Amino acid sequence: MLTFLGGTGPEGRGLALRLARAGEDVIIGSRDAARAADTAAELSALLNNSATDSDTDSAKVGRIEGSDNSAAAGQADVAFLTVPYEAQRPLLEPLAGALAGKVVVNVIAPMRFERGRGAIAVPVEAGSAAEEAQLLLPDSSVVAAFQNVSAEELQQPETEMKGDVVICADHREAKTLVMSLTQKIPNLRPVDGGGLANAKYVEQITPLLVNINRIYKIHSAIRIVGIRN
Amino acid sequence: MLTFLGGTGPEGRGLALRLARAGEDVIIGSRDAARAADTAAELSALLNNSATDSDTDSAKVGRIEGSDNSAAAGQADVAFLTVPYEAQRPLLEPLAGALAGKVVVNVIAPMRFERGRGAIAVPVEAGSAAEEAQLLLPDSSVVAAFQNVSAEELQQPETEMKGDVVICADHREAKTLVMSLTQKIPNLRPVDGGGLANAKYVEQITPLLVNINRIYKIHSAIRIVGIRN
Repeated sequence: MLTFLGGTGPEGRGLALRLARAGEDVIIGSRDAARAADTAAELSALLNNSATDSDTDSAKVGRIEGSDNSAAAGQADVAFLTVPYEAQRPLLEPLAGALAGKVVVNVIAPMRFERGRGAIAVPVEAGSAAEEAQLLLPDSSVVAAFQNVSAEELQQPETEMKGDVVICADHREAKTLVMSLTQKIPNLRPVDGGGLANAKYVEQITPLLVNINRIYKIHSAIRIVGIRN
Repeated sequence: MLTFLGGTGPEGRGLALRLARAGEDVIIGSRDAARAADTAAELSALLNNSATDSDTDSAKVGRIEGSDNSAAAGQADVAFLTVPYEAQRPLLEPLAGALAGKVVVNVIAPMRFERGRGAIAVPVEAGSAAEEAQLLLPDSSVVAAFQNVSAEELQQPETEMKGDVVICADHREAKTLVMSLTQKIPNLRPVDGGGLANAKYVEQITPLLVNINRIYKIHSAIRIVGIRN
């Protein structure tokens, strides 16, 4: 079971939608169970409409349910962290037990906005949000991924995704699993980004892309060129 | 005149070669004028051979000369900084006068290597090497560019380049000039990366690419996808 902790935000909604569309059962987690249920119902409707409209086989789409974060963490095989960075520590501190032994995918890019300057990376003492999550969840396998993928595009099921998902982790099996999950979303390519210490560089690509988006009025993504497929 | 301060290293050699090939006259600068002259002679030979071998018109390639850094800075219209980060401050402190009013292109990605961890970004108090250079050269127009371009590939004149050059600067005219210079190197595309504060994110892409290169045994580059040409 894939769960999205803080999954009512744009990145969580988008990833849950795309992975349910690929046949995965997902749980949207939120501090507020009712809000999670509302988001799950909205996404289910969107998923069923898009399955009817397109060549996606509606029999094969996954189920989307809602729950509070704590119950969602308990049911997770793989838990995606899709909260703003400020919420990471309060979210994770009470969940270290529930997430022990599980794969935790950190999607967070610590970022703030400043008038006249645009998006700015927020410094993290541990190096990156992903490394901080690993410190807070010592018995989980933290994998950093999907930070650079446009939440807006993920939420539009008919929009073709583009670009690479650079995946950083110190746990080989967990990394391989997340690389496989990435391939379930059409046109996204997983790239092995090495150890979790490299997550810092990937997280900081997000404010760069946000600023480029504003200059060019686009939804940009990155691609690592030179990899032989 | 384009000059490459610390231009005897791989990034300086490579950029000088490619821009001379595009018809620009260049000066290689070094602490040691004799070493600069040797590098200039080597690059000239490489350039003339590649011009003879290919469809490059040898009459149109630029001249490559060598000089000590101080004289090179004095002759520069555009000065490229192609030293390792550790050498930036001692290089620039005595050159603030010679570089006043000029465009200074900072190619430096502050980086060190650690056994078992690979490339690691070196933290810079000013935010980035480029912002530090702007503080050291208050009367120059600093532009951050080319940090992510493979020095190995630049030095092989018959290798097709790939990827984007994300260009960050607070001086609009200087940025436009460096975007035009980028377009002189076939297959490199300039991307407007916004203000100099964004140079930090671009500089940190370099250690990520270096680590990806080691995993995949390639020379990688980045491309910003989603920009309409």
